[in-house]
Formats: sequence, structure tokens, C-alpha cells
Amino acid sequence: MNIPRTSNPRVVIIGGGFAGVSLAKTLSKLEVQVVLLDKHNYHNFQPLLYQVSTGGLEPDSIAYPIRKILKDYKNFQFRLANVLEIDPIGKWIKADIGELKFDYLVIASGSETNYFGNTSIETHSMAMKTIPQSLNLRSLILENFEDALLTNDLNERNALMNFVIVGAGPTGVELAGALAEIKQGILPKDYPDLDTRLAQIHLIQSGDRILKEMSETASENAEEFLEELGVNVWKNLRVKGYDGKTVTTNSDVTFETATMVWAAGVKGAAIKGLDAENIDLRSNRIKVNAYNQLEAYPNIFAIGDVAQIETETHPFGYPMMAQPAIQQGKQLGPNIERLLAGKPMVPFKYQDKGAMATVGRNKAVVDMPKFKFQGVFAWFVWMFVHLFFLIGFRNRMIVFVNWVYNYIRFDREARLIIRPFKRKLKSDI
Amino acid sequence: MNIPRTSNPRVVIIGGGFAGVSLAKTLSKLEVQVVLLDKHNYHNFQPLLYQVSTGGLEPDSIAYPIRKILKDYKNFQFRLANVLEIDPIGKWIKADIGELKFDYLVIASGSETNYFGNTSIETHSMAMKTIPQSLNLRSLILENFEDALLTNDLNERNALMNFVIVGAGPTGVELAGALAEIKQGILPKDYPDLDTRLAQIHLIQSGDRILKEMSETASENAEEFLEELGVNVWKNLRVKGYDGKTVTTNSDVTFETATMVWAAGVKGAAIKGLDAENIDLRSNRIKVNAYNQLEAYPNIFAIGDVAQIETETHPFGYPMMAQPAIQQGKQLGPNIERLLAGKPMVPFKYQDKGAMATVGRNKAVVDMPKFKFQGVFAWFVWMFVHLFFLIGFRNRMIVFVNWVYNYIRFDREARLIIRPFKRKLKSDI
Repeated sequence: MNIPRTSNPRVVIIGGGFAGVSLAKTLSKLEVQVVLLDKHNYHNFQPLLYQVSTGGLEPDSIAYPIRKILKDYKNFQFRLANVLEIDPIGKWIKADIGELKFDYLVIASGSETNYFGNTSIETHSMAMKTIPQSLNLRSLILENFEDALLTNDLNERNALMNFVIVGAGPTGVELAGALAEIKQGILPKDYPDLDTRLAQIHLIQSGDRILKEMSETASENAEEFLEELGVNVWKNLRVKGYDGKTVTTNSDVTFETATMVWAAGVKGAAIKGLDAENIDLRSNRIKVNAYNQLEAYPNIFAIGDVAQIETETHPFGYPMMAQPAIQQGKQLGPNIERLLAGKPMVPFKYQDKGAMATVGRNKAVVDMPKFKFQGVFAWFVWMFVHLFFLIGFRNRMIVFVNWVYNYIRFDREARLIIRPFKRKLKSDI
Repeated sequence: MNIPRTSNPRVVIIGGGFAGVSLAKTLSKLEVQVVLLDKHNYHNFQPLLYQVSTGGLEPDSIAYPIRKILKDYKNFQFRLANVLEIDPIGKWIKADIGELKFDYLVIASGSETNYFGNTSIETHSMAMKTIPQSLNLRSLILENFEDALLTNDLNERNALMNFVIVGAGPTGVELAGALAEIKQGILPKDYPDLDTRLAQIHLIQSGDRILKEMSETASENAEEFLEELGVNVWKNLRVKGYDGKTVTTNSDVTFETATMVWAAGVKGAAIKGLDAENIDLRSNRIKVNAYNQLEAYPNIFAIGDVAQIETETHPFGYPMMAQPAIQQGKQLGPNIERLLAGKPMVPFKYQDKGAMATVGRNKAVVDMPKFKFQGVFAWFVWMFVHLFFLIGFRNRMIVFVNWVYNYIRFDREARLIIRPFKRKLKSDI
């Protein structure tokens, strides 16, 4: 991979998400050579991807160049690389751009969509874990409405205007709410020839409440908000398959739709090469001890979504969200410093800062460790927390301008098919 | 195409660029049914595409949903359609989404890159006429620098860091200047391991001056600005071929580069179906009379880049730029009104508002009909004129925020490979 060794030990970090970037910052003053690898040259702010899909934000405002994050860290190297395999014994990794030896390895490769082996769903549904996927969904939604104008077959037209979102975690809830607002505010103006009132948004949850990681109060309030917006919330219903036209479930209920979004599961993006006993079969996350360290390989660590620390409070690991990732990244840096100095490491301590989700304008739910609230104030809190965690002053400004504009004008102007999904033009390739 | 006839005559407009949109606005109060067709669901502001390619602006801020432009015009229909053929006698057009009859047809299909039949150049070079093309160029530039880190072969590395821009019209000049600024301000920070001083930017012009559509003063000043920025300006040099590695010319001079941008020619995007005598062989533009009307088909018009009105002052038609397109669009509306009322039409009158080009921060040249200026003031004028002509308040705000940020911070943060060009990932498709 053409990276010369220095006299310092080499720490290789796989992944520039919340975990990898937080760790990078804490390593900047240590006497180590750090190599950060990522498939993309940008860090992206996943919690706002649903706003890209629904035309509220441009993708460039929630992404940030990784090289710019690292530019003042003299001991850093970045490589645009897709890591394919790890050799934990030989201490090297294999990527699409070559091989690299490491002294310490930190796997921060995040998570990916979990289809639980259902290939019909994987083939025909849309996911929303990356910027390109979010842009594909944005294009598909718009293309479906354009296509709805072309048919006189009412069933086909309705299927093009219907949305089925599977999974009522924050992603599913936020996407459903945003689509409902588009249905109310934008579709009637953009498509006066379509009876857009017929467009249906279905949010399907296999369990008995939405936002199941949050409090029951939050679940109830969010459900109420969704119903106010006209979203059809289905609970205790499990989606079984989707052939591109019909969504089948474990009951008699079926849905005709040209757009099914799968937000019903994520799994760790574990990388080939580690022995099976290091991987949790159910979650595909890497099992690590309280120091984020693999028991079998003391020089290999995992942090963030891909890492599973099993504790009494969290027997299946911490939630796959930004906060545990950021905190693990921040705490691993000093632990690597201790390790290099021959000192004992300090176990990871998770500070639960709560959770929040937004359903629509003035409609959000917030669970803080000590109190819970919802509505307008929660919505403002949600916005400012998200602006705060965005990287970069420019990004914050651009997102802020968009949000103020969208709020005042009830609008979402990034409804642009810049990356066609269904009808690709030769001139656009 | 599933558009019911109304009792009013139907005007079909092909293309939602400057010409088509300007015309649309003037038709909104007439008793006609207007159908606007475009390959994209957005209008894009071509003069700023080079800023998308160089990470200064996000594509979404220079594009605007066509449906939103038309939403208050009750007599309008928009269809996302790629028009393939015109039958001028049968009075219908054929598109990828079906056929459509017209009473009046306005061709505003713009222009496309002209390779003058050189397939080696067409295959291997980059163009910058559409947003997807501009994003491809943005990705390629960044990917080349990432790849430059992977090789120890100095020739290969230099080729990855070199840029050859062919054609020194406004597009070529503005792109060359922007790349020179990136070389100065961003590359040394982002790629400390590369000797980015070796990166060369070559701007090649077959004629004896750059910006040949502007005044000689403007040409000289722009050339001076480019040289200050370190761009190598080549005049009287004609590029003959490019195999993806070596640019050959009509002299002994060759260039080794992984990125050649072809900005040396445009031609009218005339549509199949019109007899050959209606098309100018050299420019592929549609020959129209002073009313933008085809002599052979009085109910068919062409406006903007694709239209060629031959006059004494402009024997080869008006320049293929925004201003003639906007003016032709604005003047054709009232002419169609006159035609419908049986009144004589008024010949098109071109008002030359001048031309301008920007080379870099505080460096621009402006030719007004009565005076010429350059430097800081010209640069401010350039910016405000471009902000003024952008469609949409949100777009103006976002572009303004970006420009202020980029100016203060000497930065361009949209250096994101969101749409990989060379190394496409399965997860990004």
C-alpha cells in the first residue's frame, strides 16, 4: 500500500465513521503512525440521510472530507481503500489497493443493512445506509411520481404512489414522517394531475410498538404524531417478502407498492479473516472485552456498530448508534496510550445521553436519562443537537439555511433526479 | 404520453434550460396548453458547473426543480422525457415515454459537446456539460490524487496529477483557474506525502488568444491572471488525440495526463426528424428565421443554443450562451401570441449585455458593451450577476454561503467522491 514505516508502532483504523474519526482525534498526539482506511473519502452523518432521500438536504452538506479532518495530524495517513480481509496472526490486512502490515488494528467498519437472508427483499427493496443509497431512494420516489402520470391503470398508479417502510426505528419513523409532509405540501403542487391524496405511507413494525429502543412515552407520542400526519402505522405485522410489486406479510395483509424501504435491521459489517468465535452469529458484530479488545488477539480492537461489548445492562452489546461509537472511539485512544506505556487499560464506560427522533415539523420525541419531552421544544432540541454533531462550520451553515428555508416555505427543493435510478440516460453516465 | 387535449392549441417545448424556461414564463397567460419536456426534472445553471467539478459548490445548489418553476401556471404540463424524434409533417414527437401530438413545437434542446468526430478524444476525455458529467470530473480528479499515492512510478504519478484542459473559452478558463487554486490551497494539505508542486495545469487553445469571444483586453488580462496562478497557457496548439494517457497535438508537444477535459467545442443538440436543409452542417444547429421559426414549418420554432439565426452581425448565429437563449425565450412568447391572434410577428432583437469570465479569487474579466474592466471589482460583479441569474432564493443563499466560506477559508469542502468514477463500489450502486 506504499506507506513507509516510521520508527513508531503502526495503528491501522478501518472506517472513518463516528467511531473511527473520534478515535483518530485522540491518537493525534501519540507516538504512533496512524493509517485510516475508508471506502469513501468522506465521513457521512448517517442520522440525516433520510433528509437527503426526501429532498430536504443536499448530500454534500452532511458529508465531510476525511482528509480535511486529519490534515493537522502529522502522524496520520489516509487511504481510500475497501478492506477485504484481515490476517490477525500475520498482522496484515488486504484491501482493494494492496496489503498493509499493522502493529495494532482497530476495526470501526460500522454496520450494514440486515436482510436476514431474505433475497427477495434484498433484491427489490431500497436501503438507506449510505449517501448513494439515499440518492437512489430520492430518485426512485420522484421517478415513480413521474411514471404515475404515464399510466391510466389505477392499480399501477396507486402502487407507484404508495410507500411501504419496514422497520419503525428512528430511520423508519423519520422517513415516514418526511414522506407524509411531502405528500401534504409538495405533491399536490408538483403533480396537480394526480390525485396525490391516494398516496399511502405505510410504516410496518413487527413488534408491538414503534421506536422500541426508546421509552413507551416516546413510542406513544411518535405514533400519535405519525397518525396526525396521515401515516398508516402497522404493529405486530411481519413482512415476509417483496417481489418489486407486492409486499407480503405473516398475515393476510398485503401491500401493492413500487417502493419498499427496508429499515428493519442492521448487522455488524465484520470483515473476513477473524475466527468464527470472535463474531456474534446473530448480529455479525465482533465480540470484544470491556477494553474493546478481541480476547484472542490483544492487538486488535473493534469499536462502534461493529463492536459488541456484552455487559449486564446490555447483554447484546450497546445500541448501534452514534453515541456508543463516539464514546468508544474517544476512550480507546487513551487505552492504546496506556497499552503502549505498559499500563493497565480502563474498561469502557457508556454514558447514556438519551435518544431522540423527529417525525415532522414541530414534532419530535426526546428521551433524556432523567426526563422525557415531545413536541415543538423537542423538535428544536433535535435540530440543535444534530447541527452540533455535524462536522464542519460550512456544513452546519448550509444545513441551517436549508432548515430555515424548508420550515418557512414548507418546501424541500432538493427534489432533483441527479442520479437516475430507473431510467438511466446515456448522457448521464 | 397520456396528456388529454384541451380546447386550446398545444405548444410543446423540448428542453427546460434557459431558453425553454424563459419561454414558459411568457406563455403562462396565453390560451394555450403547454407541455414542457426535459430529460431531467431540473433546470441546471450551466455557468457554474465548473464549481461543482472543483468542489466549490454542491450540485443541488445550481439545479432547480422544473415542476416548481411551473407550479403556478395552470395551463402547463411537465413530463420527464427524452425526445428521440420529431415528425414535422405529422406534427408529433416521439420520446422514450411515448408519442405526443403538437400544434406548435419549440425546440430548446440546447447544445452538447462537439468532438468533431474524434472518437479517441470522445472515449477518453471528460466533458462538463451536465451535472452528472461535472460530478464525474470531480470524482476523477480526487480519485487520481488518491491513486497517485499508490504508485512509486514517477511518470505515472505525474500523469495522475496533471490536468489538460482543451479549449480556452469561459468554461476552460474558469476550470483551469479553479484547479490552480486547488493546487495552491488544498492539495498540499490534503496530500502532504505528494509533491503537489509537480501537478501541472495545461490550458490549450488552437487559436492565438484565449476567451476569443471576448475583447482582446479581456483575453490578455485573463491570460495574465492564469499565469499568476501557475496555469500553463498554450496558444496556437491543436489537440489531435488522447488515448487515456498521452495527449497528442499538431506539433511535437505531447502531454502525459490521466485527466483531459474537452471544452473545445459545442454543437447544437438537434433532434432527428427534421430535413437536412434545416440543420447547419457545421454547428448542428437548427436554421431559423428572425422569428426563431423554421422556414419550412411555420409552426415549429427553435430557440437558444440549438437555434441558428443568421444575421449580418452574427453570420454563424448568436453565441451559444445564456443571454441569447433567455432573450429568445422571452421574445418568442409574445410572438406566439401574435401568431395565434393573426398578427405579424416581431423579429428577434439581440441585446448584447456583454460577457464575463472569472479566473480565481479577485480575478475576473468583464466586457460590457461600453466599457471593460478586470480584477477585484470585476470579480464581485461576476459573483452578483451569477447569483442574480440563479433560480430560487434557497439556491442563491446556499451558493452565497459557500462562496463567502470558500473566500474566507481558501477552501472547497465539497471534495467528496459521492459518485465514484474509476473505482465503483458494489455498495454504492
